[in-house]
Amino acid sequence: MHWVVHHAAGRDLADDGDYMDLALRIAEDAGTQGEVPIGAVVVHEGEVVAFAANRRERDQDPTAHAEILALRQAGQRLGSWRLNDCTLYVTLEPCPMCMGAAINARLGRLAFACRDPKAGAAVSLYALGHDDRLNHRMIVSEGVRRDPASRLLSQFFAALRAGDGADRPDRAA
Amino acid sequence: MHWVVHHAAGRDLADDGDYMDLALRIAEDAGTQGEVPIGAVVVHEGEVVAFAANRRERDQDPTAHAEILALRQAGQRLGSWRLNDCTLYVTLEPCPMCMGAAINARLGRLAFACRDPKAGAAVSLYALGHDDRLNHRMIVSEGVRRDPASRLLSQFFAALRAGDGADRPDRAA
Repeated sequence: MHWVVHHAAGRDLADDGDYMDLALRIAEDAGTQGEVPIGAVVVHEGEVVAFAANRRERDQDPTAHAEILALRQAGQRLGSWRLNDCTLYVTLEPCPMCMGAAINARLGRLAFACRDPKAGAAVSLYALGHDDRLNHRMIVSEGVRRDPASRLLSQFFAALRAGDGADRPDRAA
Repeated sequence: MHWVVHHAAGRDLADDGDYMDLALRIAEDAGTQGEVPIGAVVVHEGEVVAFAANRRERDQDPTAHAEILALRQAGQRLGSWRLNDCTLYVTLEPCPMCMGAAINARLGRLAFACRDPKAGAAVSLYALGHDDRLNHRMIVSEGVRRDPASRLLSQFFAALRAGDGADRPDRAA
């Protein structure tokens, strides 16, 4: 599958909001499948080269956060693990694992929607994208589609609490 | 493939050194294939349930550190992303991505051989395994087979520098 966010006449480029909207749609879809609804999109020169949702429960894979899956896919698609010219859009602030993956990928820019005060490693608990001791730093933009992203997560957890007492996914918690 | 480290008569259990020796053999093998020689093994109740080497260059995957691959494999093998009862053995101190993955996997114990002063996130730059703000903490043991692990990496980078000027892998750098 291959997405391009087409730009309308009179508009030069798809903007951050368009890409985050795509990440939100991917997140919503994951939520309907019992995953914590988080989505990620990687954009290279205006083209979506990777997108993924959280799949931890489905795959029973502790590393299957949306960001990891999208970065891996982008490396395959572009034929290189170096993603300097890419932006990663993700609906929730990345955890230490995912920020570390972005550093390892030499990611150019991260844009996330809402903060994760319990595990966020871009601005909340750590600022891993701006540590001069590490061998890579990146641009970090926050707040793109913050409210719908936050609402999506709140609604998911509220529905879980109101539900059958099934084991509560604890990403973003 | 399936490894069990058998215990000799008169010896109750394979010990940390045995598992790290296995990780070192896996690392050495990766080095002969042009990867930074790092190996990881996951042990559950005395049995090796996963092992992997760094594959970043071979897969052009920014997330393909030995630890990520081994944790993912362990989740599949055990049918759960929760690895509370497992020990991860790795020949180099994990980076932020891999420490984050170990936290996300609720890893019980990490044992690493030598420190990585430039990117280590277990004790060197960060102590991610012991952050009370995160939702999991783990036992961290360092120094098992420190010298051979350190020598393996030094020799690999010395050979690279003496070599043909090919692009230098920069994991552990």
